[in-house]
Amino acid sequence: MSSGLDPAIAARLKRTPDGLVAAVAQQRGTGEVLMMAWMDDEALHRTLTTRKGTYYSRSRQQYWVKGETSGHTQHVHEVRLDCDGDTVLLVVDQVDGACHTGDRTCFDADVLLAES
Amino acid sequence: MSSGLDPAIAARLKRTPDGLVAAVAQQRGTGEVLMMAWMDDEALHRTLTTRKGTYYSRSRQQYWVKGETSGHTQHVHEVRLDCDGDTVLLVVDQVDGACHTGDRTCFDADVLLAES
Repeated sequence: MSSGLDPAIAARLKRTPDGLVAAVAQQRGTGEVLMMAWMDDEALHRTLTTRKGTYYSRSRQQYWVKGETSGHTQHVHEVRLDCDGDTVLLVVDQVDGACHTGDRTCFDADVLLAES
Repeated sequence: MSSGLDPAIAARLKRTPDGLVAAVAQQRGTGEVLMMAWMDDEALHRTLTTRKGTYYSRSRQQYWVKGETSGHTQHVHEVRLDCDGDTVLLVVDQVDGACHTGDRTCFDADVLLAES
């Protein structure tokens, strides 16, 4: 698909069968892992150029800017690509809850295995 | 595919087209995001029952236990599923580097956007 993403970055991405990379958002300072969402090339391009966390919804098949409707915005301080190119780590300042449920993080509610 | 995973957990997973969820490993205490790899139901089952980070390689199409060859093992303290079921967060104790390059994390080497 056509995107404004720097071709040198695009060439390093290793995408899922539906053309996406995983994007993990982490709160700057505290290190909390806030959420994981998906990006295609264009979502990554928009995130890099606007410093607003911008993702691609698999279910709705559209772009969304974190906080655009909720006000729970994400200012992006850093973006790092991992060694095999299938994940980006965003270091952000998250306003209020990152989760659509109102929780601070998307990982607060469902513990599959408790602290040993 | 058949797996030993608890059906109540399996029912909450929202997988990629190739049947995987994203697994993010975070160092306990420091909060460092170490790596992201993939799990199918069986890899998640093995991780939950052994407390050893166990993943599924998309390229090699096989299971791998973190540190099995390198010695850089991952003891899993907690596993949390996110609100939409497509990602698990593992809180781990990582021995030495998590990255196959020898870096502490898989996100150390490639900065796409620097601190603003």
